[in-house]
Amino acid sequence: MAGAGPPDFTVSIGYDRRLYEHDISGSIAHARMLAAQGVIPAADADRIVAGLKEIRGEIAAGEFPWRPELEDVHMNIERRLAEKIGDAAGRLHTARSRNDQVALDMRLYAREACARMLGRLHGFREILARAARDHQDAALPGYTHLQRGQPVLLAHHLLAYFEMLGRDAERFEQAALRADSMPLGSGAMAGSPYPLDRRSVAAELGFGRVSANSMDAVSDRDFVVDVLSASAICMMHLSRLGEELVLWSSDEFGFVRLADWCTTGSSMMPQKRNPDCAELTRGRTGRAYGNLVAVLTTLKGLPLTYNRDLQEDKEALFDSVDTLADCLEVCAAMVATMTVDRDAMRAASASGPMLATDYADHLAARGMPFRQAHGIVAAISRDAEGAGRAITDLSLDELRVYSELFDEDVLGLGVDSSIDARDVEGGTARPRVAAAARDALGEAASGLERSAAALGGALAGQVRAARDGLLEMASGLGA
Amino acid sequence: MAGAGPPDFTVSIGYDRRLYEHDISGSIAHARMLAAQGVIPAADADRIVAGLKEIRGEIAAGEFPWRPELEDVHMNIERRLAEKIGDAAGRLHTARSRNDQVALDMRLYAREACARMLGRLHGFREILARAARDHQDAALPGYTHLQRGQPVLLAHHLLAYFEMLGRDAERFEQAALRADSMPLGSGAMAGSPYPLDRRSVAAELGFGRVSANSMDAVSDRDFVVDVLSASAICMMHLSRLGEELVLWSSDEFGFVRLADWCTTGSSMMPQKRNPDCAELTRGRTGRAYGNLVAVLTTLKGLPLTYNRDLQEDKEALFDSVDTLADCLEVCAAMVATMTVDRDAMRAASASGPMLATDYADHLAARGMPFRQAHGIVAAISRDAEGAGRAITDLSLDELRVYSELFDEDVLGLGVDSSIDARDVEGGTARPRVAAAARDALGEAASGLERSAAALGGALAGQVRAARDGLLEMASGLGA
Amino acid sequence: MAGAGPPDFTVSIGYDRRLYEHDISGSIAHARMLAAQGVIPAADADRIVAGLKEIRGEIAAGEFPWRPELEDVHMNIERRLAEKIGDAAGRLHTARSRNDQVALDMRLYAREACARMLGRLHGFREILARAARDHQDAALPGYTHLQRGQPVLLAHHLLAYFEMLGRDAERFEQAALRADSMPLGSGAMAGSPYPLDRRSVAAELGFGRVSANSMDAVSDRDFVVDVLSASAICMMHLSRLGEELVLWSSDEFGFVRLADWCTTGSSMMPQKRNPDCAELTRGRTGRAYGNLVAVLTTLKGLPLTYNRDLQEDKEALFDSVDTLADCLEVCAAMVATMTVDRDAMRAASASGPMLATDYADHLAARGMPFRQAHGIVAAISRDAEGAGRAITDLSLDELRVYSELFDEDVLGLGVDSSIDARDVEGGTARPRVAAAARDALGEAASGLERSAAALGGALAGQVRAARDGLLEMASGLGA
Amino acid sequence: MAGAGPPDFTVSIGYDRRLYEHDISGSIAHARMLAAQGVIPAADADRIVAGLKEIRGEIAAGEFPWRPELEDVHMNIERRLAEKIGDAAGRLHTARSRNDQVALDMRLYAREACARMLGRLHGFREILARAARDHQDAALPGYTHLQRGQPVLLAHHLLAYFEMLGRDAERFEQAALRADSMPLGSGAMAGSPYPLDRRSVAAELGFGRVSANSMDAVSDRDFVVDVLSASAICMMHLSRLGEELVLWSSDEFGFVRLADWCTTGSSMMPQKRNPDCAELTRGRTGRAYGNLVAVLTTLKGLPLTYNRDLQEDKEALFDSVDTLADCLEVCAAMVATMTVDRDAMRAASASGPMLATDYADHLAARGMPFRQAHGIVAAISRDAEGAGRAITDLSLDELRVYSELFDEDVLGLGVDSSIDARDVEGGTARPRVAAAARDALGEAASGLERSAAALGGALAGQVRAARDGLLEMASGLGA
Repeated sequence: MAGAGPPDFTVSIGYDRRLYEHDISGSIAHARMLAAQGVIPAADADRIVAGLKEIRGEIAAGEFPWRPELEDVHMNIERRLAEKIGDAAGRLHTARSRNDQVALDMRLYAREACARMLGRLHGFREILARAARDHQDAALPGYTHLQRGQPVLLAHHLLAYFEMLGRDAERFEQAALRADSMPLGSGAMAGSPYPLDRRSVAAELGFGRVSANSMDAVSDRDFVVDVLSASAICMMHLSRLGEELVLWSSDEFGFVRLADWCTTGSSMMPQKRNPDCAELTRGRTGRAYGNLVAVLTTLKGLPLTYNRDLQEDKEALFDSVDTLADCLEVCAAMVATMTVDRDAMRAASASGPMLATDYADHLAARGMPFRQAHGIVAAISRDAEGAGRAITDLSLDELRVYSELFDEDVLGLGVDSSIDARDVEGGTARPRVAAAARDALGEAASGLERSAAALGGALAGQVRAARDGLLEMASGLGA
Repeated sequence: MAGAGPPDFTVSIGYDRRLYEHDISGSIAHARMLAAQGVIPAADADRIVAGLKEIRGEIAAGEFPWRPELEDVHMNIERRLAEKIGDAAGRLHTARSRNDQVALDMRLYAREACARMLGRLHGFREILARAARDHQDAALPGYTHLQRGQPVLLAHHLLAYFEMLGRDAERFEQAALRADSMPLGSGAMAGSPYPLDRRSVAAELGFGRVSANSMDAVSDRDFVVDVLSASAICMMHLSRLGEELVLWSSDEFGFVRLADWCTTGSSMMPQKRNPDCAELTRGRTGRAYGNLVAVLTTLKGLPLTYNRDLQEDKEALFDSVDTLADCLEVCAAMVATMTVDRDAMRAASASGPMLATDYADHLAARGMPFRQAHGIVAAISRDAEGAGRAITDLSLDELRVYSELFDEDVLGLGVDSSIDARDVEGGTARPRVAAAARDALGEAASGLERSAAALGGALAGQVRAARDGLLEMASGLGA
Repeated sequence: MAGAGPPDFTVSIGYDRRLYEHDISGSIAHARMLAAQGVIPAADADRIVAGLKEIRGEIAAGEFPWRPELEDVHMNIERRLAEKIGDAAGRLHTARSRNDQVALDMRLYAREACARMLGRLHGFREILARAARDHQDAALPGYTHLQRGQPVLLAHHLLAYFEMLGRDAERFEQAALRADSMPLGSGAMAGSPYPLDRRSVAAELGFGRVSANSMDAVSDRDFVVDVLSASAICMMHLSRLGEELVLWSSDEFGFVRLADWCTTGSSMMPQKRNPDCAELTRGRTGRAYGNLVAVLTTLKGLPLTYNRDLQEDKEALFDSVDTLADCLEVCAAMVATMTVDRDAMRAASASGPMLATDYADHLAARGMPFRQAHGIVAAISRDAEGAGRAITDLSLDELRVYSELFDEDVLGLGVDSSIDARDVEGGTARPRVAAAARDALGEAASGLERSAAALGGALAGQVRAARDGLLEMASGLGA
Repeated sequence: MAGAGPPDFTVSIGYDRRLYEHDISGSIAHARMLAAQGVIPAADADRIVAGLKEIRGEIAAGEFPWRPELEDVHMNIERRLAEKIGDAAGRLHTARSRNDQVALDMRLYAREACARMLGRLHGFREILARAARDHQDAALPGYTHLQRGQPVLLAHHLLAYFEMLGRDAERFEQAALRADSMPLGSGAMAGSPYPLDRRSVAAELGFGRVSANSMDAVSDRDFVVDVLSASAICMMHLSRLGEELVLWSSDEFGFVRLADWCTTGSSMMPQKRNPDCAELTRGRTGRAYGNLVAVLTTLKGLPLTYNRDLQEDKEALFDSVDTLADCLEVCAAMVATMTVDRDAMRAASASGPMLATDYADHLAARGMPFRQAHGIVAAISRDAEGAGRAITDLSLDELRVYSELFDEDVLGLGVDSSIDARDVEGGTARPRVAAAARDALGEAASGLERSAAALGGALAGQVRAARDGLLEMASGLGA
């Protein structure tokens, strides 16, 4: 703020300093290109580059003198550069505006964020695939409406999340590609009167394209919304997992015991083992939704081109990215370190009513239209429940009172037969799930490589590093 | 609702009847496959198919007896089928659950919605490209912060929207591909005990894949959120255009006159020509954001697999799709039929301060660091404004008081020279924009074909038809 | 829309016809005042009033010829009036604009909606109070983090919702009072040049105030947001209840059996009793949040005064009001008709770890700092759990190994003693809850009268009628 | 987090340290009450109180050793207390849980936030009232649809915001009263087994009530949503003001010149004076909406009672409160320091078409039904515009071609007559607005006192201090 207004209203240095590496990389590429094109003297460009590298070191070392009165990361760096190299610093802003500069920084950040998220998604998928491989003989009730429906394999259940996270990875890849457009050279909004070589800047910074329209380039924040939207959907998936972990670790379900690192006690009730990390993951979904709404709201109805409102894109993006990155780590580690009570799960999945559909299928397989079979078994279920019995307790004679089509095979129906009967692509039959788990292990690895290749360049390494980091972290927790 | 509860609480027939075509197509494909696999008798399948076709005709003709007491479109059709063909109807629901059935219907709907939206997006892009071609010599002020910045071409401004809509098209293509997974055979959640041929069903219905996990298949609504998110972002773009049309058609700007069809008078103030369609477009952004929030909220924290909460995905999706489809048409038609006041635009873009950047660039081109040049021209601007003059009113001698680097070329600076100076990729220079407009015309056509090919099959035709419809509509309004 | 544009884009008659009664009431009051003030001839006013009453009858009887080409409810009625009474109809719009007219209609609607909601809230509170009275001896586990914590009374748990709904009632009262400002006479935005008696119009329509600023009056939609916000918060409360009913009626919890009217079976799994109404309530929270976001978004950044964007306030408001009204009924009825399994609840609340806090309090009461007591009991809990025992299984000697402060009283600790120990204002001790239930019964009745008095006039009757309707409905379902 | 999990996932000390004063105040009141009731020794309570006061001093002085490994503000303070006073510190947590403790802290914070916001709202209203008093002779166009409608007084326009902010103040008062319920004594969720005197704690902390139900008390975050909702609506109002200031300070409108302190230049375009503060205010509306959505999402579907998800209420609340507090200051200061160009405003409001409604009213006053008069003047407007003239340029003879009812008075119609004609309660006539401005000055003062009285106690002083601070700040900026 120019004058003596309310303090800090326009100051963004508290959060945009996170962009310093991107800002400096962009400036170095810009200065080199300006010199190569003869727009500024080569010697000045050399001084600029050297100065910027020094500044990068200062910041990394925590020794940079941040000055809030300079408002943002850009001016802090530029002013510092002037202190270091004098007048030549003034040539850096040739053919550049704050508008295209900040668009560049944000795109660099967004692409790295996508790389980071992709690595964690593939890492989490690896953990889910391993868990599926390891839990193939564990049955649990499949639920609809939170009512027990049919027995399924725990591996099958876990692979449902594998699918969700696969779609999430697609979204982050697509978001990264949408952000892959180099805006520098758009100036304030009309382009630049200098003989720039925009493509060389793009190449140096790892971009595949340059922006096609300068007015769009400085006012577009779609790539921010893309990341926020992908994050919101992924957090929605994690909220479902969080809810399930809360349920499964409750006294009533008792299916899993979460590891100590992700539970806490109560300050009052000594016996509690609260699933805090699962709850916080679920709760932080609000944050991801809120950030998405915040930026969409900010963008609504803005005339072209740059408006200061756009400053509001940063904290929301940083927060969603940090939140999701943490939650992916935590969820992956919770799954990797939870202890499964297979007996409790199997007992629950063997409860009588769970097999009712199999009884109806038994009749349908013997020629009765399914709707009719469904009605008969519903009646049997009701009668049995009224008598305090389960349908599986009934003898063949008792069943044949309802339909002559029941035969001895009905007595063989059980958890395993029910599971194995669903022997269709995507079904829970043991051989199907075994194959699916194998495929998932392969896909977790090939998906990583696909994402790395799609982002390319330095980002490919960041994708892989993020995945390795997640797996190491989980391993360190005893997974 | 089974009993005598509050009326209609669980009834969805008021809105899900829109899915009737998809529901019937899915049932026909399912019945045929069941027969081909020997699960039901071929004769029954024939009766089912014939009955369903009759029902489709009845509904299309408005003669179908909808019964709210049957709650939803699925039961209405199935009950009607039973009336028509008797017991054989009961075999249709073999190997199928409401859960995978409704997932199928929604996916079929979502893919068609994407096709429709893609056609309109490409049609609108065509209109923007034509407008860019036709308005290449019209200059207007480029704004940042709604303050006049630098002169730009109207064509350049319009092509910024061409870029935005191009990204929108990408999103709808990706949403369509994410919805391209055939869920039937997932049963209630565990798969099916019948020997199904899921791939043949997929092929008949135009799907490229079958779902890989039955639990995911019945609980996944990502494809709904993908469409809602793409719609929200696209509506955000249209809200910016709406805002600009409101501004441009105001007395103060006076840049365009909107066609009569999209303005209305006042019930009280006889002289008014209100830009109602532009305002409604801007206002309906709220609807698109709200629908996105609604479904994300509904999905938050749901345990697997199907929960009745998921019924809430429908109205939000239908509403966003209808809203965006309408707004795309209206916006395209507004652009196609607006009258541009080139003189007013040029006069505004020639106002003195607009050229200040060119003055600074003039100095920078003569060796002065840009930051310093910027400071000098800012001082000149202030002084001139204080004296009630524009910077362009100053003589060379007056300018040279501020810097000796000013030379005669500065007197030649004007709107056209300013525009043409931005001769960089993505810049507003006339040759650049002429080329960009040509490219845009080509891209509008090739983009259409790319989308059509990506969706494939019957959807390709729907993409093209939607685009043709939009162009005809605009043409009918005098474009 | 004036011309041949995309059909129906500006048409609102599909939903704003719901305002017909308010529109007609407002017009009658306006016409009478105009005549009383000598602005229009008394005979014309009489014709107008008679004509409008006829039209009201036609609409109520379903015989009104709605014409979409007239776009909205206002023009439909006005045109019909002209057909009935000729030129005199043209005098009705004297000193009135569509802008203040629609503001009036929406305020009349909003106030009635608040009355309706208040009645249902008080009715639901009555049902909760009765349930609390009737379930005073039922214990269930109190949960934090969905982990069993301490035993509480079911009545105490239900009264937590009584508190929530009490705050909801406050919000709707306040929203109703904020809407209680009569805008007619504000004209398009500047006021009216006629000698109006705004206060008489207000009095006839039951308003307590007239709007103080004409520009605010036509652009203000705060009262819409107030209702949407109150609805969103109330739906949030109901979503928590919905979640609990889903949990409690699950196989794992087994605390309640929901009545048949609010559960449904599965099309595939014959044994299912799905809590659809509880799930739909929970799911419809998304709708209420979305509508709030929609209108807030629409209002963001609109310059004064009326903008056509404001048309978008209607569907969102209607939908949230309908949704909440239905969900309040359904939730009240679910609570009134559910069957509680007291034995299952008590068994769960008697599980060993539940009393751990009581053990710690036992030590603290004997002089040990609570933090230390907490640590000791946590250790006992861990050791006991490791040995497959509950803390309540330990003998006094075993306990005294951990602390000499344990004495015989510890053996008397149990569900009832734990509950009764919380004998503090707001606590779960039986006498406290008995008193709270009595107070609640009184408060449900006096709160109704307070709300009725606050809204006053005809609205008071609507408050009472809505409450009576809810209680009758619940009673009809067997409550 | 108990173990070695992902760092910081459960740590809240980064933001919840802001609650330290409230946490300490609550602990002091609790400790004193425990001693007074004989639950802990008086000497221990004295040590606790003294220790806490020391800690408060340390924190205020920036000398407190915050330890992230202790996770939150509560444990940081409690552990520090133990270091200072030893074992006695362990007695502080007697009869208290983290659940009721954090509920208390948040309520104390929320009430202070409301006090702060109320002071600023009343201060801003004071500034608006003064501006209305000072600008009574300035006319500007009143807009609908951003089209010029009728002339109004600038004072009238400003008083529309006075009305909006008055409603905002109501909401914050009501939110403060809803937060006015002391939760301590609710324990983890069931109450406390100690003989507490909850009312004395409430009295010491300035609460008017104690919570009535312990389960509600620890799970209720309505008061957070109330503040977030009030903030969102108030930010919506400010976004409208921000939009208007952006428009009014544009080259095209040219109605106001914003003060230097709230505008900034461009890094590229030397002449720019960008209304950054107005834009940021408008943009930060997104933040307020997002925070509201975030917390509503987090609360959706949570079962009773406390869940760790609730930790997510804090950052959203703090951020909305900070944002709104800043924006209120900035907006008040912008209005107080802007320079109004009365000539430009009057010229715009005298443009011909602005008086069309007055022409129609002229005819209606002479007996023509308004609808007919409206049609005739619309035709005149069109014809005049077609001929490049304004309706006010037409002679009486020319007008009488359209209707014989035009008489000489029509020639006297002008900006002032048009304004003064709206002489109805709430209208823009000069005497009405003069009276409204006087009333507003009084109301700004009495409203302050009303709010102070409603909140009472120490909060009353905070209300007044916040108002005085805002006025001083504005004054320091030259207002």
